[in-house]
Amino acid sequence: MPIPPDATLADVGEFGLIAELVGLFPQGEQVLVGPGDDAAVLRVRTGHVVVSTDLIVEGRHFRRDWASAEDVGHRAAAQNLSDVNAMGGRATSLTIGLAAPGDLPAQWALDFARGFADECALVGASVVGGDLARADEVVVAVTVLGACTQAPVLRSGAHPGDVLALTGRQGWAAGGLAVLGRGFRSPRVLVEAYRRPEPPYEAGPVAAEAGATAMIDVSDGLLADAGHLAADSGVAIDVHAAAFEVPEPLHAVGAALNADPLQFLLGGGDDHALLATFEDVASVPAGWAVIGEVAAGAGVTVDGAAYDGPTGWTHF
Amino acid sequence: MPIPPDATLADVGEFGLIAELVGLFPQGEQVLVGPGDDAAVLRVRTGHVVVSTDLIVEGRHFRRDWASAEDVGHRAAAQNLSDVNAMGGRATSLTIGLAAPGDLPAQWALDFARGFADECALVGASVVGGDLARADEVVVAVTVLGACTQAPVLRSGAHPGDVLALTGRQGWAAGGLAVLGRGFRSPRVLVEAYRRPEPPYEAGPVAAEAGATAMIDVSDGLLADAGHLAADSGVAIDVHAAAFEVPEPLHAVGAALNADPLQFLLGGGDDHALLATFEDVASVPAGWAVIGEVAAGAGVTVDGAAYDGPTGWTHF
Repeated sequence: MPIPPDATLADVGEFGLIAELVGLFPQGEQVLVGPGDDAAVLRVRTGHVVVSTDLIVEGRHFRRDWASAEDVGHRAAAQNLSDVNAMGGRATSLTIGLAAPGDLPAQWALDFARGFADECALVGASVVGGDLARADEVVVAVTVLGACTQAPVLRSGAHPGDVLALTGRQGWAAGGLAVLGRGFRSPRVLVEAYRRPEPPYEAGPVAAEAGATAMIDVSDGLLADAGHLAADSGVAIDVHAAAFEVPEPLHAVGAALNADPLQFLLGGGDDHALLATFEDVASVPAGWAVIGEVAAGAGVTVDGAAYDGPTGWTHF
Repeated sequence: MPIPPDATLADVGEFGLIAELVGLFPQGEQVLVGPGDDAAVLRVRTGHVVVSTDLIVEGRHFRRDWASAEDVGHRAAAQNLSDVNAMGGRATSLTIGLAAPGDLPAQWALDFARGFADECALVGASVVGGDLARADEVVVAVTVLGACTQAPVLRSGAHPGDVLALTGRQGWAAGGLAVLGRGFRSPRVLVEAYRRPEPPYEAGPVAAEAGATAMIDVSDGLLADAGHLAADSGVAIDVHAAAFEVPEPLHAVGAALNADPLQFLLGGGDDHALLATFEDVASVPAGWAVIGEVAAGAGVTVDGAAYDGPTGWTHF
């Protein structure tokens, strides 16, 4: 039964909406029991499962006037798929919990689901279950399952002497967010990068195979996430500012906002680039840029000194 | 570093709270990589994984003045563990997403986590990951992973001629909720049953081994969940009212609220009892009560007639 275009979640009801949503999620061959039972059942061939969970909250992680429902769906999926990527794994299955006000347009939920499903299709993962609940604001909880064909790459394996490398767009989403925050809509390429990140999904497994010693996806901010690598590995990390080529649209934004464009590169997180360490430059796969080095000690520096620009953000 | 008793989540910060929380969650031998990396990694010996996700929202699924944080933690874990139980499986691992206002006492989150961990310990499951975010109200998103040693028991396997059976407390939590809703605190045993359900965790795998043809946990309400079994199996289910022994405290509540106590048994859901179908009475394991039968047709009846009391609830 098609949902009328002006129907709200309250009009459609929990079971009516679930019935529509389930039709949007194709099930892969690894799914033995899909949505609709007390639990889904998935085939696991590798002897292990990688699992991660993330929350996104309206007004904190997205605004409905800054991104379409489909964009939010893409982004919610991307940030979870990226967590499996950062272990050197491939995502297989996801669950979605959607808490939302009763007056949310049902079409928003359907468009969100369509964007989510399209992002998952990029890596061949299936949405196998979920839950709906009423709440005062939109909260999306996603859990992703995946598998590694190599040993998972942890945050804790970097050693002094390793090189630090980065792959994927970095700083674009932060530039787009800064633009939106000032009420602008251009440069469009940055705004689009914020609305729909393009994590380098193939790069995680390739890095694992190339012997990455530690890896993380850049979600809190490049220097903040480098800090997580440094802390968990018990090492110091120095980032080389000259290693970054500042892309043209970030120059434009920096000029317009009177800000150093490097701050988007060093502080931005929403692109879900990958940051990894390798034993030497020769081990770094194609498509990665060497941006720093690992030494004995603690903490993160930029060109050997403390960086005093924004380095990320926390949720409370 | 101990958290001061009057500290809020905003005082403690995301990373400070996570550090405290992680210490509350012991890791089982199946956990290859626990909390703190981009994802957890779990050993899977059975070739499959059972996965389910649930949301609970303050003001809809719990009230902080009706239940302690520890109670809410027990209940959030129980309702997810119960979903694996209803497949005939055993839970192994869970993730928690906690969205909460910055002014939530940090102690509430810690007590919640303690209750959650204690409930998980009943079945030997580990909390392997999670996420924190700021939101206007408390929203808890839990995902549970598990495994079955038999084939999973679906909702769709009931056949005409099967018997319907129930195990676990049923109606107690609904009675407790009705009492709290009127501003009372007794009968205490019912209020406690609402605050901390005691799902029959051993019964799911036993039922699977005994050849249960279909199974569901009672979360929406007994007749509502019987309706899910009937719809998914393409059968009719008749429930026998005389099969229920109304427990004494429910008689008392019925008298006090001028309500038929049977409505708590037929409409209540928060106890997470198990409802299953078996080929015949001889197959029903000890500890289960036969409460009805399966026939050709559709829908759920009570003693052959439509039931006009409350039969459950939906979230929108």
